[in-house]
Amino acid sequence: MTDYDVLCVGNAIVDIIAQCDEAFLKDHGIIKGAMNLIDVERAELLYGHMGPAIEASGGSAGNTAAGIASFGGRAAFFGKVSKDHLGGIYTHDIRAQGVAFDTVPLEGNPPTARSMIFVTPDGERSMNTYLGACVELGPEDVEADKVRGAKVSYFEGYLWDPPRAKEAIRLVAQHAHEAGRQMSMTLSDPFCVDRYRGEFLELMRSRTVDIVFANESELKSLYQTESFEQALDLVRADCRLAAVTRSELGSVIVRGEETVRVDAIDIAELVDTTGAGDLYAAGFLFGYTSGRSLEDCGRLGSLAAGLVIQQIGPRPRQNLRQEAEQAGLL
Amino acid sequence: MTDYDVLCVGNAIVDIIAQCDEAFLKDHGIIKGAMNLIDVERAELLYGHMGPAIEASGGSAGNTAAGIASFGGRAAFFGKVSKDHLGGIYTHDIRAQGVAFDTVPLEGNPPTARSMIFVTPDGERSMNTYLGACVELGPEDVEADKVRGAKVSYFEGYLWDPPRAKEAIRLVAQHAHEAGRQMSMTLSDPFCVDRYRGEFLELMRSRTVDIVFANESELKSLYQTESFEQALDLVRADCRLAAVTRSELGSVIVRGEETVRVDAIDIAELVDTTGAGDLYAAGFLFGYTSGRSLEDCGRLGSLAAGLVIQQIGPRPRQNLRQEAEQAGLL
Repeated sequence: MTDYDVLCVGNAIVDIIAQCDEAFLKDHGIIKGAMNLIDVERAELLYGHMGPAIEASGGSAGNTAAGIASFGGRAAFFGKVSKDHLGGIYTHDIRAQGVAFDTVPLEGNPPTARSMIFVTPDGERSMNTYLGACVELGPEDVEADKVRGAKVSYFEGYLWDPPRAKEAIRLVAQHAHEAGRQMSMTLSDPFCVDRYRGEFLELMRSRTVDIVFANESELKSLYQTESFEQALDLVRADCRLAAVTRSELGSVIVRGEETVRVDAIDIAELVDTTGAGDLYAAGFLFGYTSGRSLEDCGRLGSLAAGLVIQQIGPRPRQNLRQEAEQAGLL
Repeated sequence: MTDYDVLCVGNAIVDIIAQCDEAFLKDHGIIKGAMNLIDVERAELLYGHMGPAIEASGGSAGNTAAGIASFGGRAAFFGKVSKDHLGGIYTHDIRAQGVAFDTVPLEGNPPTARSMIFVTPDGERSMNTYLGACVELGPEDVEADKVRGAKVSYFEGYLWDPPRAKEAIRLVAQHAHEAGRQMSMTLSDPFCVDRYRGEFLELMRSRTVDIVFANESELKSLYQTESFEQALDLVRADCRLAAVTRSELGSVIVRGEETVRVDAIDIAELVDTTGAGDLYAAGFLFGYTSGRSLEDCGRLGSLAAGLVIQQIGPRPRQNLRQEAEQAGLL
């Protein structure tokens, strides 16, 4: 018996989303397609130059938890907000989605994290994240019972940015493996991989992590190679199971000698890629913890990712279980 | 010479938007399709039962101002927020759209207004508005120079709900007419019309208002008739110019003996009707203040309304000038 299918751990962030043109990114020194870490002064400066925006709860692993719950999976989340207006919004949204979220919020400063996301006409998103209260996440926030009761515990590589979250993750891994559960991570971002390459490889090679999610750029960054096939062979050796997304080319899943290739779904219009990888992981992990084939896991991932990129914001407005049933996947 | 094409006055509200099923509205006593006024206790109760939401600056006349600016028109706005987080979001968004907004924010309580908007699967929105700081809008917030420098001053009928906003509107009308400008209003909502029918008719018949916007239900409510054609004849006599929207049937514009019928635009998918009437008014008033024909005004209104109902939220993410150029309207 398990209490949860997936426990997710990540930076608890409210997204502030606006559209901009390519010149805006260049003029403001924003690395396109990446997660740019910013301080509070730069956050104020960028907001002053940002167009009309909408606000939506986000954060990579939080989006994944919300997606799993939308598929009907049992999800829990650890992440740090502050007791302020944005923290209230974040807490409401993830709980309203049916995710168990009980991390004690921070009293006072720093405030709840926010990421200003600029979406260019090609649908690519460029994130500018002020980590705020997320810097306070630590091992004291690990609820051991939830970890031990979850089939898979999943975390984002971005957690290596705040100072003590990695300690929390090592504690999660210890509880999870003691209880015979599995650990999973996403590599998050090619620049994040660049910052923590050695540690991420060590997490995989030491079997602290069993299942890795990455997109093509992140995987190539991890192995510092331009060859996707070479990177795929290397990750095959370094971890038990890896799912690698390739945008419109779909995804490739490797487990030992096994290789499964899954198509992306057809989409009407690419609006905003925010959440694509997070929702792929949601579909995949929902399938995986339901005992589905790797191909089905990949197809559920493709469905959720394909839906979220046709709208503004990081979490699909549709009920993913209904969508999967209509698509004949459940 | 004028400084502005349109000055808009309205309740400055941040929308909190979520989807729900029909049963939710019934179970919570929410009148479908209407603007339901709520107090702070009910706001907390409803938010506790609301699904995952997104936040976006809204408010009827604020949406119209943002739409006019998106068409490239010169717009200004009067509306009251508080100096809190939502007030900061509201101020950022409307200024970032290029609207002149300088109403002095309230220090302390009540907080910035918010409307919980529930969108049912048919795309209809049902609003639950806590007026917050909007109750403090009064004649002291009327910037006479802006009124006198605007071709048209436009306000929402909803302003009859807070206690002193109607005094502000009477002062706006005085400045506008002294400067030889025109006054315009939207009837806002059939229940709002029901609350203030006598006063709204008096505004029209006394020529305090020159141009009226309404949808079919509001116009029928105004004249307490089930006959659209009868209501149209009555409004023709009561004001100089009226533009009446009829959802997928398009709109009918009447001015004296003249009648212009304009089609709605074809849409791919009806997602959320929030902002439809506000954006129709934006397109119409942008056209009107640019000296276009009534038919062109109606077509610009149909375009903006048709775009906003294909997305979540009350203000179109597209640049309306570009859209109008592509549609051959500019």
